[in-house]
Amino acid sequence: MDDRELLSIICPVLGIETCADDCAVLPRITGIPVVSTDMLHESTDFPQGMTEWQIGWMAMAVTISDLAAMGATPRFLTLAIGLDREERLDELVRGAQQCCLQYGARYIGGDLDAHVELTLVSTGIGSVEDGNPVRRSGTQPGDLIGVTGIHGRAMAGLKGDPRYWKDLCEPKPRVSEGILLRQAGATAMMDISDGLAISIHDLMNASGTGCRIDSSKIPCITDRSPEEALSLALYGGGDFELLFTVPADMKEKIPSPVQIIGEVTRELDILLDGTLLQKKGYVHQW
Amino acid sequence: MDDRELLSIICPVLGIETCADDCAVLPRITGIPVVSTDMLHESTDFPQGMTEWQIGWMAMAVTISDLAAMGATPRFLTLAIGLDREERLDELVRGAQQCCLQYGARYIGGDLDAHVELTLVSTGIGSVEDGNPVRRSGTQPGDLIGVTGIHGRAMAGLKGDPRYWKDLCEPKPRVSEGILLRQAGATAMMDISDGLAISIHDLMNASGTGCRIDSSKIPCITDRSPEEALSLALYGGGDFELLFTVPADMKEKIPSPVQIIGEVTRELDILLDGTLLQKKGYVHQW
Repeated sequence: MDDRELLSIICPVLGIETCADDCAVLPRITGIPVVSTDMLHESTDFPQGMTEWQIGWMAMAVTISDLAAMGATPRFLTLAIGLDREERLDELVRGAQQCCLQYGARYIGGDLDAHVELTLVSTGIGSVEDGNPVRRSGTQPGDLIGVTGIHGRAMAGLKGDPRYWKDLCEPKPRVSEGILLRQAGATAMMDISDGLAISIHDLMNASGTGCRIDSSKIPCITDRSPEEALSLALYGGGDFELLFTVPADMKEKIPSPVQIIGEVTRELDILLDGTLLQKKGYVHQW
Repeated sequence: MDDRELLSIICPVLGIETCADDCAVLPRITGIPVVSTDMLHESTDFPQGMTEWQIGWMAMAVTISDLAAMGATPRFLTLAIGLDREERLDELVRGAQQCCLQYGARYIGGDLDAHVELTLVSTGIGSVEDGNPVRRSGTQPGDLIGVTGIHGRAMAGLKGDPRYWKDLCEPKPRVSEGILLRQAGATAMMDISDGLAISIHDLMNASGTGCRIDSSKIPCITDRSPEEALSLALYGGGDFELLFTVPADMKEKIPSPVQIIGEVTRELDILLDGTLLQKKGYVHQW
């Protein structure tokens, strides 16, 4: 089967017009556009046992999560597919399409290539209609630090706990929470793809601030020892929750359910219960 | 070296702000946006002997060529890099950046991943300020068929002719020609990445028309036999020229240098000098 024939699998899922031209033609974009791209590949990003549908879903979800981290509405996504075996394509495209539909975005096209290792690159365009995208920098001393969701679930799944397998394989980007946090006056925001600890470091470094985090406030899984649950939350990747800061007087406007876990300090130390927090998480190594 | 350290190679080339957030924040896009994405990888797309700078250039050029094929102005590009050896990164990013600058576009960011085989995915956003993007469909019987440039050069380079090596490795997308052709009333357009013959088939199929092509009108390289030169032009890939149709009465408005090579017919046959033109070109095979 050549690539033109494989397109006949993709086109019916996306709609014929999506596949007809050198480019996708979009409606005019109102608001401020934001763009992100993410590359995933089998050996690093897709644990054995994931279905093709889940792989397609995740490929889109990671980029939608980046858009959510700016407080943007996801609008349009492309997916470039480096395909190792043609029988994987149909379900993969369906999972990608379902993820886009779930978050109100349009899967507008992509590219298809033969590859020894399954490799997926999604690119997303979002828009911020009212106000400005939330940057990583912008945090002020005195701001509160908060997170969405429960942390450590994806890592528990990766370590073999079947109760958390779906959390690992079908991440749910925090799109509506991102928009609400932006509207509530968030001063800085990012998504937590490589673990909470390293993300706290990154967010503080971007603004030249430090912080005090209270470990008892971090929402963790409750079905194992507190030490293990906290370790999964701090150093495990894959939860795709949001980490943000807000001025203390905006606390009432913060949407639920989010959890305040600490506060920003002028001193540069990044402290967990009064001791330095390790800068450690999921990192690609060459 | 981990991916955070490698970012310190990319950020100075792109500008610090480009690397700071989960997304790139763009200025508001006026006009009609068009989007394209292209995946390239070493074993299929980068002939041995290409420099890293040329690989970076080509990764952006192929997507800029897709934007040119709609008559759009290239505006913003991302590049996801699956990197096999870290020492390749610096020159690769510089080549990509130079290609964007050459065509007035901004290299706004990307992603970086460890990969067994060098894999590059560029995504481009263009805009059409005045009028509509040119589609592949829209051709009418009686329209003239034209091409930009000289065909077969890249294939001659791929076959080992050093005079055409640079044509192969540093394709020059036809951005200004694409815009002028759109403004001159082109009814259909596409770029020729897999060879002229297969592109003629694709363009005619998109509109449900046929055509008569005059082989003596096809601009070919002149330093070998006419038969060999024509074969390189028809069935060789990599020239990234434009193929288009225009109404016959618009002929005077067509920008130079382009060459009219035939005309569109109501009959579906695709004829070269009166005989059926083979649908053959560069095709990825699984």
